[in-house]
Amino acid sequence: MNTVPNFPTIAEASDLIARGEITPVDLTQHCLSRIAAQDGVLHSFLTFTGEQALQAAEQATAEIRSGQYKGPLHGIPVGIKDIFDTAGVRTTGNSRLLEERVPSETAESVKRLEAAGAIVLGKLTTHEFALGGPSFDLPWPPARNPWDKARFTGGSSSGTGAAVAAGLVLAGTGSDTGGSIRNPAAYCGITGLKPTYGLVSRRGVIPLAFSLDHVGPMAWNAEDCAIMLQAMAGFDARDPGSASVAIPDYRQALATGVAGLRVGIIRHFHEEDRAAEPAMLAAFEDAVHVLTALGCKVSEARLSPLSQYAACGNVIMLSEAYAIHEQDLRDRPDMYGYACRARMSIGAMITAADYLRAQRRRTELVAETAAAMHQFDVLLTVTAASEAPEITQVGPFGSYEKPLYTMPANVTGSPTISVCCGYSANGLPLGMQMSGRPFDDATVLRLAHAYETATAWRGKRPQVM
Amino acid sequence: MNTVPNFPTIAEASDLIARGEITPVDLTQHCLSRIAAQDGVLHSFLTFTGEQALQAAEQATAEIRSGQYKGPLHGIPVGIKDIFDTAGVRTTGNSRLLEERVPSETAESVKRLEAAGAIVLGKLTTHEFALGGPSFDLPWPPARNPWDKARFTGGSSSGTGAAVAAGLVLAGTGSDTGGSIRNPAAYCGITGLKPTYGLVSRRGVIPLAFSLDHVGPMAWNAEDCAIMLQAMAGFDARDPGSASVAIPDYRQALATGVAGLRVGIIRHFHEEDRAAEPAMLAAFEDAVHVLTALGCKVSEARLSPLSQYAACGNVIMLSEAYAIHEQDLRDRPDMYGYACRARMSIGAMITAADYLRAQRRRTELVAETAAAMHQFDVLLTVTAASEAPEITQVGPFGSYEKPLYTMPANVTGSPTISVCCGYSANGLPLGMQMSGRPFDDATVLRLAHAYETATAWRGKRPQVM
Repeated sequence: MNTVPNFPTIAEASDLIARGEITPVDLTQHCLSRIAAQDGVLHSFLTFTGEQALQAAEQATAEIRSGQYKGPLHGIPVGIKDIFDTAGVRTTGNSRLLEERVPSETAESVKRLEAAGAIVLGKLTTHEFALGGPSFDLPWPPARNPWDKARFTGGSSSGTGAAVAAGLVLAGTGSDTGGSIRNPAAYCGITGLKPTYGLVSRRGVIPLAFSLDHVGPMAWNAEDCAIMLQAMAGFDARDPGSASVAIPDYRQALATGVAGLRVGIIRHFHEEDRAAEPAMLAAFEDAVHVLTALGCKVSEARLSPLSQYAACGNVIMLSEAYAIHEQDLRDRPDMYGYACRARMSIGAMITAADYLRAQRRRTELVAETAAAMHQFDVLLTVTAASEAPEITQVGPFGSYEKPLYTMPANVTGSPTISVCCGYSANGLPLGMQMSGRPFDDATVLRLAHAYETATAWRGKRPQVM
Repeated sequence: MNTVPNFPTIAEASDLIARGEITPVDLTQHCLSRIAAQDGVLHSFLTFTGEQALQAAEQATAEIRSGQYKGPLHGIPVGIKDIFDTAGVRTTGNSRLLEERVPSETAESVKRLEAAGAIVLGKLTTHEFALGGPSFDLPWPPARNPWDKARFTGGSSSGTGAAVAAGLVLAGTGSDTGGSIRNPAAYCGITGLKPTYGLVSRRGVIPLAFSLDHVGPMAWNAEDCAIMLQAMAGFDARDPGSASVAIPDYRQALATGVAGLRVGIIRHFHEEDRAAEPAMLAAFEDAVHVLTALGCKVSEARLSPLSQYAACGNVIMLSEAYAIHEQDLRDRPDMYGYACRARMSIGAMITAADYLRAQRRRTELVAETAAAMHQFDVLLTVTAASEAPEITQVGPFGSYEKPLYTMPANVTGSPTISVCCGYSANGLPLGMQMSGRPFDDATVLRLAHAYETATAWRGKRPQVM
């Protein structure tokens, strides 16, 4: 057995695999031993499929030995958020209603990862139905932040944030209806991409709110997100929201420089609309300097107040979520955790007219953002207001108590990535977002990659072990 | 001045104009004298623009004399339903709220008719906001049916139905959210086309329910509807529902025969779901024989029960309408007529979840209809259950008390025409619908034209004068 370096990225590990220096079995066993050592504390896995994973790794190893190398995901261990269906493996959404549910078909995006050679180590914890919070009244306990186990991971893709940050898997899937990929990416110091609405199939993913739901990759950096997205993206006639568009080579796009890229800095979201902590402000301004030094044309941008995007997104999200859950919420309210039930029940009070007004306002906000994108290639905002809070301090309405910096991209569908942009005084990661034009995910990945390459953040790892 | 034949169709009149046998001025004066003689009883006009019309007719006459002939609508007198904006001319929706409203821009579809040379004689009566009923508590009285002035015209494009049937104009515009073009077409014995959703711009038309609203032509026959549609159809970037599709030559399409066309007969709508009167049943079966004789491949078709289409359409319609009117209904309820207020207020009780469930059900019904259209080119149904009722017998919920035969095509967006298919014992017209695949309006027009040519209905005219 060959030695696997700690915290390899997908790009690094796939290089080693392609050169024959390590095998998928080596890499999978490396991850399994990290899971064994750490996940008792982190609770990132909700269902563990180590045995099947080892079998798949052995098969991948044999395939590669016989010259059938599938590309950079071949033999790479990943984790799947437990709202993505996996054939024959329990998929629960961390809900008591679905505790015993075993789907017969795998979600389209997971199928595509597996077809590209990825090895699934198991199902990762999520807030209940991707909406609740880090609750203690659910079938499985909330994940812990590898940077400080007393801290919240963010959510709802909480298990993916923790598992990737702790190096238990090299990447994972997340879903994002109001920020559920980007928020845990920020709190856990990793990179998470919410792709353009319609780019990645949502078939086989438990829906929360169909017009805001996105699925996408979470990984150590933008390059790894590009590798994951390459496999996941593409038209699916069986997802009504899926778009039939050409898929570029995302990794190749990273090679182009970013000099001359027009970056709009949105400060009013965190300076006027919802105040961010001083450490966050400092990290954000530092990032602006880095982008300027990289040759980006940086200037101020303004959109409508954050609260307008957030209110619009919340009305739509809670309406669409309640429409799905109304019957169960009435018949079996005790089967829901308090936080999820409390949030979803707000949807019962929303009238059709409220919902339609929110959708009309959304049309205006989409147009406003599209107009801004005539002037800019990418918009820069913070991902969260601060470092991750202590897990016991997160109430049932969690980050919904104040407008989410992540919601605008759900309302507009714009491709948006969260990257680590520094650390708080407590040594906890901070995140910022880069948001692009619809279906220009490549530019967002390119800028994130240039930024990550120019800064030291990507080298830093939590010290859980 | 040359003699204009009574009740000329657009095709006939434009032939006479093109040959120089009559002028647009002759034709306009002919219509103006009919209006003067009859509209005191029919109340089809709500605003009359005879002077401007004569000026436009003089201009058209001069243009044609100097060889600048624009085509079959050049010099043709038309009427515009009073929910289509007309620059400088009062546009009210027959609402007290808008009684003094004078738009500064003309609705896109009307602009296109004018660009094709049509002469606008005025604004035609409508049910309040295209939703009320034939109410007596509105700024303008309800239109009367030219076949029997004690009878309802149908609605909401009531003025257009009456004015075209009485030969006061050669054609007119209607809007159709649940049947408002096809219902008055049926009751008034004319032909009305609800085009495919997105084919004709709705910009500048007072909205009722954006996802169900259509605008289209009403005329004496399918050929005239084809001429009108040719001018009205086409992409408009400023209508969010507008579709960018190629526009065929609709009139040329009429020349092709209908032998071999697969026609699906939907009898369960009027035999099981909502019973139609015996005269209607007999007329419908007679039409089936005519289509068979024309060489169509006629067979039975089934969809979900009519009530499912109607319920789905009603929830969506009343939600979307209420969302627009909520503030005014609360602040100034007395400004609405009883019927319109009573209907719209139902929208206040619909939750976002109800609305979303209706939209989800709609997706299934659209798929069901699309699947049926693999087997059929056109579906045949009745337009209404009977002849036009007496106007005093129409309650505030009017035809909404029972499921509308017209609503399925609003739910699916399919192009659907209503043609006259016979007469009741009282000598009142009866209507049936032909519905096609989305954006295959040409086939619907072609079948309607073949049917009309093969039958005597198109020759019959009401004896109002």
